[in-house]
Amino acid sequence: MKDANLYNLFLVYNIVLMKRNIVIILAAIFASCNQHVIDNQPVNQKDYTQWVNPFIGTGNMGHTFPGAVVPFGMVQLSPETSNMPMFSEKGEYNKEVYRYCAGYQYGDSALYGFSHTHFSGTGHSDLGDFRLMPIVGEVQLAPGNPGDLASGYVGKLDKRSETASPGYYKVRIADSDIHAELTATERVGVHKYIFPEKGEANLIFDLMSNIYHHKNKNVWTFVRVENDTLVTGYRQTKGWARTRKVYFAMAFSKPIQSYGHKVFDEVVYNGFYRRFDEEHNFPEMAGKNLRAWFRFDNAENQELLVKFALSGVSSSGALANMKAEVPQWNFAHVHEQARAKWNKELGKVDVKMPTKADQETFYTALYHSFLSPVVFEDVDGNYRGLDQEVHQSEGFTNYTLFSLWDTFRALHPLFNLLQPERNNNMVKSMLANYRQSVHPMLPIWSHYANENWCMIGYHSVPVIVDAIVKGTTDVDLAEALEACVTTSQIPYFDGLDQYMKLGYVPSDATSSSVSKTLEFAYDDWCIAELAENTGNKSLAEEYNKRAQSYLRVYDEQRGFMRPKDAAGNWREPFDPMNTHGQGFIEGNAWTYSLFVPHQVEELIELTGGNKAFVARLDSLFTMTISDEDIAHNEDITRDGIIGNYVHGNEPGHHIPYLYNWAGAPRKTQERLRMIMDTMYGNEIEGLCGNDDAGQMSAWYIFSALGFYPVAPGSPMYALGSPKVEQARMQLPNGKILDIEAQDQSPENIYVGRVELNGVAIEDHQISHEQLLAGGKLVFYMTN
Amino acid sequence: MKDANLYNLFLVYNIVLMKRNIVIILAAIFASCNQHVIDNQPVNQKDYTQWVNPFIGTGNMGHTFPGAVVPFGMVQLSPETSNMPMFSEKGEYNKEVYRYCAGYQYGDSALYGFSHTHFSGTGHSDLGDFRLMPIVGEVQLAPGNPGDLASGYVGKLDKRSETASPGYYKVRIADSDIHAELTATERVGVHKYIFPEKGEANLIFDLMSNIYHHKNKNVWTFVRVENDTLVTGYRQTKGWARTRKVYFAMAFSKPIQSYGHKVFDEVVYNGFYRRFDEEHNFPEMAGKNLRAWFRFDNAENQELLVKFALSGVSSSGALANMKAEVPQWNFAHVHEQARAKWNKELGKVDVKMPTKADQETFYTALYHSFLSPVVFEDVDGNYRGLDQEVHQSEGFTNYTLFSLWDTFRALHPLFNLLQPERNNNMVKSMLANYRQSVHPMLPIWSHYANENWCMIGYHSVPVIVDAIVKGTTDVDLAEALEACVTTSQIPYFDGLDQYMKLGYVPSDATSSSVSKTLEFAYDDWCIAELAENTGNKSLAEEYNKRAQSYLRVYDEQRGFMRPKDAAGNWREPFDPMNTHGQGFIEGNAWTYSLFVPHQVEELIELTGGNKAFVARLDSLFTMTISDEDIAHNEDITRDGIIGNYVHGNEPGHHIPYLYNWAGAPRKTQERLRMIMDTMYGNEIEGLCGNDDAGQMSAWYIFSALGFYPVAPGSPMYALGSPKVEQARMQLPNGKILDIEAQDQSPENIYVGRVELNGVAIEDHQISHEQLLAGGKLVFYMTN
Repeated sequence: MKDANLYNLFLVYNIVLMKRNIVIILAAIFASCNQHVIDNQPVNQKDYTQWVNPFIGTGNMGHTFPGAVVPFGMVQLSPETSNMPMFSEKGEYNKEVYRYCAGYQYGDSALYGFSHTHFSGTGHSDLGDFRLMPIVGEVQLAPGNPGDLASGYVGKLDKRSETASPGYYKVRIADSDIHAELTATERVGVHKYIFPEKGEANLIFDLMSNIYHHKNKNVWTFVRVENDTLVTGYRQTKGWARTRKVYFAMAFSKPIQSYGHKVFDEVVYNGFYRRFDEEHNFPEMAGKNLRAWFRFDNAENQELLVKFALSGVSSSGALANMKAEVPQWNFAHVHEQARAKWNKELGKVDVKMPTKADQETFYTALYHSFLSPVVFEDVDGNYRGLDQEVHQSEGFTNYTLFSLWDTFRALHPLFNLLQPERNNNMVKSMLANYRQSVHPMLPIWSHYANENWCMIGYHSVPVIVDAIVKGTTDVDLAEALEACVTTSQIPYFDGLDQYMKLGYVPSDATSSSVSKTLEFAYDDWCIAELAENTGNKSLAEEYNKRAQSYLRVYDEQRGFMRPKDAAGNWREPFDPMNTHGQGFIEGNAWTYSLFVPHQVEELIELTGGNKAFVARLDSLFTMTISDEDIAHNEDITRDGIIGNYVHGNEPGHHIPYLYNWAGAPRKTQERLRMIMDTMYGNEIEGLCGNDDAGQMSAWYIFSALGFYPVAPGSPMYALGSPKVEQARMQLPNGKILDIEAQDQSPENIYVGRVELNGVAIEDHQISHEQLLAGGKLVFYMTN
Repeated sequence: MKDANLYNLFLVYNIVLMKRNIVIILAAIFASCNQHVIDNQPVNQKDYTQWVNPFIGTGNMGHTFPGAVVPFGMVQLSPETSNMPMFSEKGEYNKEVYRYCAGYQYGDSALYGFSHTHFSGTGHSDLGDFRLMPIVGEVQLAPGNPGDLASGYVGKLDKRSETASPGYYKVRIADSDIHAELTATERVGVHKYIFPEKGEANLIFDLMSNIYHHKNKNVWTFVRVENDTLVTGYRQTKGWARTRKVYFAMAFSKPIQSYGHKVFDEVVYNGFYRRFDEEHNFPEMAGKNLRAWFRFDNAENQELLVKFALSGVSSSGALANMKAEVPQWNFAHVHEQARAKWNKELGKVDVKMPTKADQETFYTALYHSFLSPVVFEDVDGNYRGLDQEVHQSEGFTNYTLFSLWDTFRALHPLFNLLQPERNNNMVKSMLANYRQSVHPMLPIWSHYANENWCMIGYHSVPVIVDAIVKGTTDVDLAEALEACVTTSQIPYFDGLDQYMKLGYVPSDATSSSVSKTLEFAYDDWCIAELAENTGNKSLAEEYNKRAQSYLRVYDEQRGFMRPKDAAGNWREPFDPMNTHGQGFIEGNAWTYSLFVPHQVEELIELTGGNKAFVARLDSLFTMTISDEDIAHNEDITRDGIIGNYVHGNEPGHHIPYLYNWAGAPRKTQERLRMIMDTMYGNEIEGLCGNDDAGQMSAWYIFSALGFYPVAPGSPMYALGSPKVEQARMQLPNGKILDIEAQDQSPENIYVGRVELNGVAIEDHQISHEQLLAGGKLVFYMTN
């Protein structure tokens, strides 16, 4: 809280000076100082990046990366510590690859180079484009094995030298004594390599490497050495994104001395014939799998800078991005810019946490919340659409990387408070996706102009409706409604035809039928809200009916949501502890039976009233889950669970808040503090599961501030138990909301009362409108 | 000569009527009639297409195709009679595939469908994009074997029903009783299928099929069923063109009833997981190898029309091409337009040949001369460049398919007379290629935004210089000179570094060293001419020196051009009959020793004067070549040779004219008539070898008219012995040149004298300027 101190100091100083009758001058100073605190612009000298540790989550299964990135930047330039293929030679899936969703594990000491695109925290993976590895001595094109430095270009990280901060990464490569630094802009990665004085300076450009690599992943690679300091090209891959093209332009700070490449294809036919040596100093390269190398004069100057620009559109687009964003050869300047960008974004919530560890947990969570979706257009507004055509973004900025099943819950609602303009652009990007979709549909889980169909529901809907309800978007409501309705009626999507016919997704028609029914129902409620909003009563009625579909999969006798076949028979056998093959996904019947975020009161009544509901929640948090049931769940480990509550997976994220509705807010408060204290931390293993593109982190930000959007699409936030001592939020309307947790302490986890601008809040919820009024929200903490 | 008769008739009628004193009216009629003959616009009712037989060259090794195409159109919609792969399962090259360079052999009865891109007459192949095959009954996605109709979708041609004319192809498929008709515009193929009344109407869309197919040829395929009458997408292939993308838009005249596809990839990984049936009625398809099918209601209406548009840029580009070129569903109209386009082009030379067979030979040769290069840009001027980026053609129309080693000789010179505007666009396309090339270089052999590096020399140079010398291009001379000079100095290209150092290409540095030296020398002479033209004396001097490089590979002792190593030693052993491994390509030392087209007089002197030279030529035409030597030559058969003169390959095309320079023009005349009579004809096997993108045909057109450009880049044409009786040419300047061969007969093969507008030509050459003056060129034929 340096800034607050500074502010206080000025106040005191002001009063003293006033006595000396130089009121006018000081009023001006004060005004400027005051504004400076309020706007939290870069002029604010407070360095929030000091509390961000990009290594948090890079151990265990957090799936974060430590590399250089700016907020929502397309370039995430980060080290790769594995070259692990997704399948063994025999075609068996290699489970170990899951650890490398973001390309990096803190415990590793191998270094395979630095690549330019990564997911943060996802539970499946792709990307890892354009890996550069500096080496000395002879050119090695084989990556090599982690334990055997002689086997390829693989190097060894000097772990003691490794540092990372927002927009910056630095390491010494122990075996070659090369010092590497990385920084970035939105579309350009900047590398700085200092080679040792002795030895050849080479750069390996591995265009075969991929995250989740498999032998058919590379589709095509095209490279041109335009001149002795510029290389351009593109790569197309077939991975999680099926038809993905990324273009690049790479510039060097000093001329290439010599270069070459090798195509590692199973060459059956290579055109008519090749008469001249194309592997050395020949400026055109193409193939499915290729690696290139560049050699630089190292005698006079050991520093090599590389600018590496990306584009989804074209090589010339990438080059224009480079020229616009990094016109000069000034690594320090780009780094400073990156840090300033982060300070601007992180400063949108100025918090005081009980400990430095908490402070780091908070700001690293905020950092992780601001990594994606990423800007996906060139500086001229051209971008590649879902139809693989090039479009111009008119009236918006195009974003990609929508992990919507995760992020509709807390991340996009967080953006509605802290990144309203960006969220508006994201909503518009989703509508552009809809217009370009052949179905047409809003995105499900999309990245890089591809729908990867991961997970269930149509959760673009709550993101769009939440933005509309909260007034942060200026999209055309009729178009938004059409897009939501059309998406919800695509018959071949995930059992929707049956859902529309029967009122539920039958278990014999498709997998995860109950989860789908419940999530469709919630999304449909959002559509009803939007229809209501636009005055379309009959549509609102239709979707309000669909929103009650959860009733159809509730087995009153067993007291659980339960799979039912098309004939109406409950699925047998039925074990509510088991997810596997039981009509659920990433959560068992215990968890999913609580997923009616839009009608919690009705759910409580349905399941036997408040007492029974509280008992059910208590059981969830205290029961014992067997190892077998864990194994049958996707994507969780013991670290991320409390009883049968799985914080590592999203379907339960709203659950601790549900006690509120059943008259037991203290239990909400208790559970929240427990989750915040046990599932988050500032250690390398500080994330209890995949960060899921920021959803896990966004959950923390909300909960630490004391409220949470249980049902996005509604303007209400459930109140919890803040972890902060104080927080100052810049609201979308320019106002300030100060949050204070009076008597905050590890023991005082309960909230005695809540006051907004001096008026007690009697409900267990607070509305977006109330927050937007700004002022002071005080939680009176007790034990 | 209908038109000439009509003209005479009017003259007579005119005189008669004049006597009746209605002079004014008839003068007007005469004037209009006269103009109509002169302009030869579509208003001219003469149907030149009657003398075109697209089947000529589809037997034997002509490598022509019979399908529907308009002059220089990108779409060549033609039947495929083979599904032969380029390599056996064991990876052995399948020599038989060579017969299918254009996808079709007249003798076949199998039909695999109709694809949209073909080369005409090339000696290597690629393309064959987007094969459509109509079938009845059950969907078959396997192509099947030629002899076994049950094995796949392969059908049987009813040969009696097969007809083809410019812009039109028709056949009945015997086994299914489907009647198929094809026509085309520049960018759109139009199919008309009449299905039998009984049975299901299906269309197989084989996106795996390729000409010169191999298992790694398909790189990626992307298909969208936009709605029930429109499908879009693209395919990328790796063949002769390494990075080739073709986009399409396909529209149907009636709605798709159901559809599906199958991906035949060795699927190792298909994204995260697929939850719903993507193989049936799912509108997004993608993969390396896929085939789709579409089913149509056949009960009420058995006709199905398909518009199939291409683009090198994008699917939306293809769709715009379709909308612009074929806005309506009117097959007959498109066909009529295509025929009119052909009549306009073919009518540019109105000839009377001795026989109908000759007439057919001539006009089919003219037809084959006007098939490529092809327009390669969208209707909006966007095109894909060599850099794989999308460019806008400003101030020109972009063309592709430059088989320059072949076509610099006679085809482009023919264009300078008959297609000056198109040739200007081709020259500009070559310069655009230069600007987009990373080397940068003018095209060598390029197609579809790729350099395939086939054959030797840099023969864009003579094409550009010929156009400049003949005044048919308005390119910037400085840019043209820069492009030519730069291209001729790329050190890694084909031994150019050594050529520049030593004055010849050494045999130990690269293959075909003598052929390269000789062709570089000729190209360099063209550059010298251009330098002279722009007033750059020192450059002219430098390149005139390079133009004499042929002297360095002439072995005076043996009397042949002979391979020499870098140390200056003649290669041993040396057999002037043998091409193989002897420093030559597509011609042995006998042929190549005569390749100094720019300094024939100096060559004659070098090789011992006129008498020795004539004797040498006589030997060439009369000696016996062994089967072994034929086998060692590329690309020739006994059909295309006379003695050791190989008309089927290009290096000798100027040779029969060389007698002229040694004072033996009668021998030129004799040989030419012999070649025209034995190497050309109106039969299916009427071409003695590959038509080579029109070069063989263009040779015939020139020779039949009585003159030939021995050294393009020079304004001179060597005089020969015309085969025509009369010809009327529309010249680039709008004037008319009438050619007459008086006393033309099979015996009168010698030219007694030649008169231009009544003045005898004493030289054995005639200049472009002389031709441009128009008027009457009379050959007085004798025996």
